[in-house]
Amino acid sequence: MFRATLLTLFPSMFPGPLGQSLAGDGLARGLWALEARDIREQGLGKHRAVDDTPAGGGPGMVMRADVLAASLDAAAQPDDPRPRLIMSPRGKPFSQGLARAWAAGPGLVILCPRFEGVDERVIAGRGLIEVSIGDYVLSGGEVAALAILDACVRLIPGVMGKEASGAEESFESGLLEYPQYTRPREWEGLSIPDVLLSGDHAKIAAWRRAEAERITRERRPDLLAPFARGP
Amino acid sequence: MFRATLLTLFPSMFPGPLGQSLAGDGLARGLWALEARDIREQGLGKHRAVDDTPAGGGPGMVMRADVLAASLDAAAQPDDPRPRLIMSPRGKPFSQGLARAWAAGPGLVILCPRFEGVDERVIAGRGLIEVSIGDYVLSGGEVAALAILDACVRLIPGVMGKEASGAEESFESGLLEYPQYTRPREWEGLSIPDVLLSGDHAKIAAWRRAEAERITRERRPDLLAPFARGP
Repeated sequence: MFRATLLTLFPSMFPGPLGQSLAGDGLARGLWALEARDIREQGLGKHRAVDDTPAGGGPGMVMRADVLAASLDAAAQPDDPRPRLIMSPRGKPFSQGLARAWAAGPGLVILCPRFEGVDERVIAGRGLIEVSIGDYVLSGGEVAALAILDACVRLIPGVMGKEASGAEESFESGLLEYPQYTRPREWEGLSIPDVLLSGDHAKIAAWRRAEAERITRERRPDLLAPFARGP
Repeated sequence: MFRATLLTLFPSMFPGPLGQSLAGDGLARGLWALEARDIREQGLGKHRAVDDTPAGGGPGMVMRADVLAASLDAAAQPDDPRPRLIMSPRGKPFSQGLARAWAAGPGLVILCPRFEGVDERVIAGRGLIEVSIGDYVLSGGEVAALAILDACVRLIPGVMGKEASGAEESFESGLLEYPQYTRPREWEGLSIPDVLLSGDHAKIAAWRRAEAERITRERRPDLLAPFARGP
């Protein structure tokens, strides 16, 4: 079973949105598990300090390597096979391919930093994989961890209402999704394209493929580049 | 003041993690505002239906243009100056530049889709900006909206503890962040680099700049490309 362990200063942020809808139903049905641990349990002294000033000066505070390592060691045994992630804008970009790989595995241990960052030494010292959900700065790793878990959990067999749905979405084919339409046939002077009402399944499939290619070419030519380069 | 309006089938997911920590303090102090509206209020019939089967067939359900337009119209007057976003993996990639621009504005109206997507016609019909937080598929737009709001809200003056902190982070300089260290000086045989303990501020600044450049070059050469191309 996929088990998620979060290390955070704000354990009550979890499961948060993942406690509702399909992810929440899956959690309640035991299709996956989530544990949020408070880093402050391994904090130092009577104030349970987790951070200190940056070596070399500068604004903000840095989370201590010894505290984070103790938190990781308490959360996962050395032989725990789960990848250990640390959310960081410097990290490897998260992708649908990583979501698929991690969803098929035993789960994830995710360290959610706050403040100016973490002492660099804990990354090598505990074999952490730095992962980024995008090129923007968040106030902490918690919302990033929610995004990663949401993307993984929906791929766990049984979590989504219809297993079939997963395969036709953006990125699964290497293309962005084609446009969707539903009733009513006319809305504010705009019609559903005739081909979709034709009942000709081969024509509909060809139209959708062509639209997905057009939208991808117009908006995200970078997604097509690996194919353009050839084998 | 920055006002966020979310249109969702799960209004209780908000403010969620943004109700805690610095974003939550800012919300409590009136530095920004959040309203989550249930799309189902504009649903049709006694079951308040919001979706229907895709024209042309296929798995899943599509959110109706008329219902979404009614939800948007109820949430924001035509002269409301806030950008209207729809979260979508097909969208414009969210970036730190967009976070800065939106944080300095009047706020955002964010439509959070579920199911297989939305009827294409509402996007043009209501001038929605499709935005993606990354190349992965989420179970709905809610967690993506949380990421966008987190990135924006922390840039609102007064929300962060130290205004100075924002400027030195990843992407603000066009580079990924340099490594940080804090006490203890030695941890598991690993030392803080000597230069950071030298007290020589010019040398420390030069080392940090060089490290930020090295890390960016190694991990994300795509971020350097616009500069490499020259003016």
